[in-house]
Amino acid sequence: MAVLIDKLVICGVGLIGGSFALALREAGAVGRIVGIGRRPSSLEQARALGVIDEIAADWQNALRGADFVLLAVPVGQIDPVMATIAPHLDAHTLISDVGSTKGDVIAAAYRHLDAHLTRMVPAHPIAGTEKSGAQAARADLYRGRRVVLTPLPENDAAAVGRLEKLWEACGATVVDMAPQDHDRIFAAVSHLPHLLAFGLVHDLAGRANAELLFSHAASGFRDFTRIAGSHPEMWRDICIANRQAIVGELDQYLAELAYIRALLLGGDGARLEQLFEQARQARMTWGERFGG
Amino acid sequence: MAVLIDKLVICGVGLIGGSFALALREAGAVGRIVGIGRRPSSLEQARALGVIDEIAADWQNALRGADFVLLAVPVGQIDPVMATIAPHLDAHTLISDVGSTKGDVIAAAYRHLDAHLTRMVPAHPIAGTEKSGAQAARADLYRGRRVVLTPLPENDAAAVGRLEKLWEACGATVVDMAPQDHDRIFAAVSHLPHLLAFGLVHDLAGRANAELLFSHAASGFRDFTRIAGSHPEMWRDICIANRQAIVGELDQYLAELAYIRALLLGGDGARLEQLFEQARQARMTWGERFGG
Repeated sequence: MAVLIDKLVICGVGLIGGSFALALREAGAVGRIVGIGRRPSSLEQARALGVIDEIAADWQNALRGADFVLLAVPVGQIDPVMATIAPHLDAHTLISDVGSTKGDVIAAAYRHLDAHLTRMVPAHPIAGTEKSGAQAARADLYRGRRVVLTPLPENDAAAVGRLEKLWEACGATVVDMAPQDHDRIFAAVSHLPHLLAFGLVHDLAGRANAELLFSHAASGFRDFTRIAGSHPEMWRDICIANRQAIVGELDQYLAELAYIRALLLGGDGARLEQLFEQARQARMTWGERFGG
Repeated sequence: MAVLIDKLVICGVGLIGGSFALALREAGAVGRIVGIGRRPSSLEQARALGVIDEIAADWQNALRGADFVLLAVPVGQIDPVMATIAPHLDAHTLISDVGSTKGDVIAAAYRHLDAHLTRMVPAHPIAGTEKSGAQAARADLYRGRRVVLTPLPENDAAAVGRLEKLWEACGATVVDMAPQDHDRIFAAVSHLPHLLAFGLVHDLAGRANAELLFSHAASGFRDFTRIAGSHPEMWRDICIANRQAIVGELDQYLAELAYIRALLLGGDGARLEQLFEQARQARMTWGERFGG
């Protein structure tokens, strides 16, 4: 593949940013990869692993002549990072992010990047694992996955097109969506399940007999709670940024649980079985269509 | 391995009963395996797959000279099945079950098997997948897994010992527990997570935009909801049999969700992060100790 960008800057070289770097490098789509972030030790590790080529001394050096800067930090860091990079951005630099929420990222862009809105294209790659850090980065993380773009009205079509090409070079499929749709959809299918898994493990871990309970948990528990191993700061930021949509989803789910509770108390086996059957059908259909 | 039982009768040749048959056969621990159950087509399939050697014509034929009869039916069938087998049981036949709930199985045993209580040893193998049916049976399903026995005061020590040897021949580790402890523990670590997963999929599947939501669900959703593909009748029976303990667990979980909801509404990122961190630590510790 032809080189799509000469100088790539990854801000936050963890699982997501690091995997993007590895994927573009494997595709032969990138020249030099520069990392910058909060923790020098993480950046050293990323360089030692070959995820990035060099560590930027400061923002000015990082951003000078950059073709693309990917903001791969927890969404709670997006606002200060945008404020920091704004004075140093070149007039040609494409900017994007990987945030699991889009409304807050876009609000921060309007606050800090008004001179660069044609080239700041918000995005969210639908990939990840419960692992985090550059040591978990994989060149194939995005292969066959979706990346949702939520372009701004101000975005230049060429900038959007360049970002699409980069994600496609990582093996991903790109789809467009309005940011408010994005935030509601992912509150339902991602943010809420994460909260529910964190909540169950936290609940059980706080019991006097937690040790005994955990010793009898098996494969159903393992899979249900895998995402409770996810990155606490990242999920704190997602929950705070998207809390309105998440509370809405949680309330619908609480109504579902109230219904199930009533069926249990009433000993209504027929309706419970019907509910389980409908869920099973939907889950199996999903698995067949979307490879779950 | 020496043959431990000559004639094994599996009542309900699905994932659990079928895997027990395959495991004992692979261990060389069993002579003849006879299947009996509700659906002739399922039994034919089990025979065609080599899970059982023969299909019993009726209960009398099935149980005559049986060394061990395993009741591997949904727990809602345990009562009528025990009533049916009682008149045909030989005086030496060991009896056990695989029910995910024990209080109801034991109550049924006292109702119907009073002449056989020395040899009716309740058990619950902690294994399974969201798949069901003899075609999903595997000889290694129980390898490295636990089987919980909840022996009755009336049980003969030799009968308990024989059952332990059979499960150990399947590769499992046997532990003893009081039935009421069993039912509370599994309400927390198994029954509740299943209900929560069924509930989430049912909730989303009922939305006007279900199609759109499901199309954006990814790996976190996949693992969280895998158990929503479980057998509806089996889970109906478990929920009805153990509903008192399950409602208790659900109510504790609802209190946890109410706390999380308050943190969301209050925008309390610090306490959310602390909760996520505690859950993550507990989940990682569990994973390291119990291979999740």
